[in-house]
Amino acid sequence: MRNSTRSRVDPFIVMDVMEAARKAEEAGRHIIHMEVGQPSTGAPKAATEALKTALDQDALGYTVALGLPALRQRIARLYGEWYDVDLNPERVVITPGSSGGFILAFTALFDTGDRVGIGAPGYPSYRQILKALGMVPVDLPTAPEHRYQPVAEDFAGMDLAGLMVASPANPTGTMLDRDALGALIGAAQGQGAAFISDEIYHGLEYEKKAVTALEISDDVYVINSFSKYFSMTGWRVGWLVVPEDHVRVLERIAQNMFICAPHASQVAALAAMDCDDELQANLEVYRRNRALMLEGLPKAGFDRIAPPDGAFYVYADVSDLTGDSRAFAAEILDKAGVAVTPGLDFDPARGATTLRFSYARSTADIEEGLARLARFMTERG
Amino acid sequence: MRNSTRSRVDPFIVMDVMEAARKAEEAGRHIIHMEVGQPSTGAPKAATEALKTALDQDALGYTVALGLPALRQRIARLYGEWYDVDLNPERVVITPGSSGGFILAFTALFDTGDRVGIGAPGYPSYRQILKALGMVPVDLPTAPEHRYQPVAEDFAGMDLAGLMVASPANPTGTMLDRDALGALIGAAQGQGAAFISDEIYHGLEYEKKAVTALEISDDVYVINSFSKYFSMTGWRVGWLVVPEDHVRVLERIAQNMFICAPHASQVAALAAMDCDDELQANLEVYRRNRALMLEGLPKAGFDRIAPPDGAFYVYADVSDLTGDSRAFAAEILDKAGVAVTPGLDFDPARGATTLRFSYARSTADIEEGLARLARFMTERG
Repeated sequence: MRNSTRSRVDPFIVMDVMEAARKAEEAGRHIIHMEVGQPSTGAPKAATEALKTALDQDALGYTVALGLPALRQRIARLYGEWYDVDLNPERVVITPGSSGGFILAFTALFDTGDRVGIGAPGYPSYRQILKALGMVPVDLPTAPEHRYQPVAEDFAGMDLAGLMVASPANPTGTMLDRDALGALIGAAQGQGAAFISDEIYHGLEYEKKAVTALEISDDVYVINSFSKYFSMTGWRVGWLVVPEDHVRVLERIAQNMFICAPHASQVAALAAMDCDDELQANLEVYRRNRALMLEGLPKAGFDRIAPPDGAFYVYADVSDLTGDSRAFAAEILDKAGVAVTPGLDFDPARGATTLRFSYARSTADIEEGLARLARFMTERG
Repeated sequence: MRNSTRSRVDPFIVMDVMEAARKAEEAGRHIIHMEVGQPSTGAPKAATEALKTALDQDALGYTVALGLPALRQRIARLYGEWYDVDLNPERVVITPGSSGGFILAFTALFDTGDRVGIGAPGYPSYRQILKALGMVPVDLPTAPEHRYQPVAEDFAGMDLAGLMVASPANPTGTMLDRDALGALIGAAQGQGAAFISDEIYHGLEYEKKAVTALEISDDVYVINSFSKYFSMTGWRVGWLVVPEDHVRVLERIAQNMFICAPHASQVAALAAMDCDDELQANLEVYRRNRALMLEGLPKAGFDRIAPPDGAFYVYADVSDLTGDSRAFAAEILDKAGVAVTPGLDFDPARGATTLRFSYARSTADIEEGLARLARFMTERG
């Protein structure tokens, strides 16, 4: 049977690593997982308890397309708590994860052939979703001296229909401060490009609070999710904040493309928003892990790393060690028993000389992983 | 800010009815809901119990993109139980509802501008999702004498990249028998069009078993869901069955566009598949409701109805009563206190003279609704 051209999506290179790790574990080896992009913790306890109650009391049919009103209101309140931003709950659109948020946002904003700027390195699915929708992702190679984030000069005169940034970013963990974010928003708006801010790692910051694009402009799309800070990856629930005059458009697209985000997940998400004690305890684990990584990775020989402001990643330039990050990741898995992600997934052009290390798992795993990496590098010489 | 052309999605006309019904209820009126397209029952008891157990034992992180292997295997077994079809579990792709299945299938099969034939009347979101993806839905007006289903002559020489049919269909409830389905598959394949069979209402049949496209050909896409027979609308979990050589393509698209279907929903869905007693009891309610409808609607004056083979809808030609189904539905809501769906959502061309009545709710509601409709029609004269 026929296949479309747009279905020619690049494979995730990390999948090879994960499959090799799985096989090694099947064969009895113990592997430390520094390749994963999700917390090892589940949803907060009160979230699962709230769902159990709902399971006994509610048929959990479709919600309205924009999501449970109570959840939209609670998210609006979060913007007051986190950023001192007064947000109209009507502007909040509940989505099936940030994945659903990307699909909705791109569909609402862009047409076939429209060019959308994304930072490289960046989350691989930005590129693939844009292509799957018939749009054109435009990689903006970023510089270490700009914290691996785009700057206005990177896309001047590029005829972009949109610009998407992430802060904290995946794979680097770097953040944009208020000035840098403001300059990007201004430059994008100045050339008529829609500005999309992926804020999925907000809440996972270690030195200072991340800035939301809504502190700077109402004329932006913000994408967020319950997957990271709220530790609810598999639940597939997130949200968009959009300009008021875009809500009806989003509602119609969401009605048709998704009907609604999973009802049970929305119930759990609402309860998760009042679980700060548990979530802050998770954050303290990441904080300890991060400190261990910042000490242990350079000691092991991975010393050219991006400023890890947030999220739970360290992105390392390993060009002094390899020209083939894929083979290098395979070697690290084989010899050190540590799974890491080759940079090629995030930056097809320059990722052959970078690796991403995740520290989302337990501190004991991080300690063991760092020890293994140190031994491996010593033996490698 | 900019909006895309493809975001100009038609509104659901039934939303006006639903909003008017909500306001009437807010004002203290009692409304019978014959406009809804979902069961009033929730997930089977054993499904919610299985989820409660999982909530205590599992972090419910991302599943692999193709879905929980046990669920894929169980679905493959269903094809043996229901149709005596031996299905390779590897061909089953778990999706975020049939909505996610449409997005995946269309993306895998079609490119920008590709023309995809859909029967009219039909599920409105077929048309809207295709447009949102930059594809071109081609309405195939169907005839009552063909059970409101397309026949090969309807799309001969039409240069379609794909043909999608539903049996049982929404809004008509009509089914394609094996010969009719086989003829459509053959005609589509004969002109190089991909064949997609929407089988979301399978299991809700009253006279004879619905035929799956997989009984006829392996070179098709089948879309199904846990929303209808399994009574799990808000859970957003469904599945595709695709040719073996398409699985990897689907996997990559799903990884990027959805990551995975909601984990909790997959756990509940797996348990739901062994709840036949409860699900058959639900079906018996629909069966009683259907019998009441088939007696009561013609008595009330709605006697030109499509053969209601399955699903929980009756589609009525009301051209002898109105030329404006939207105004007529508003009148029925206002005077009879019964919410129904104007046909315009399903057939933009001819739906001005049709209505859809749903009998998915309780039998008491159906009895009361039919009594109200009879009084209304008598008073209308």
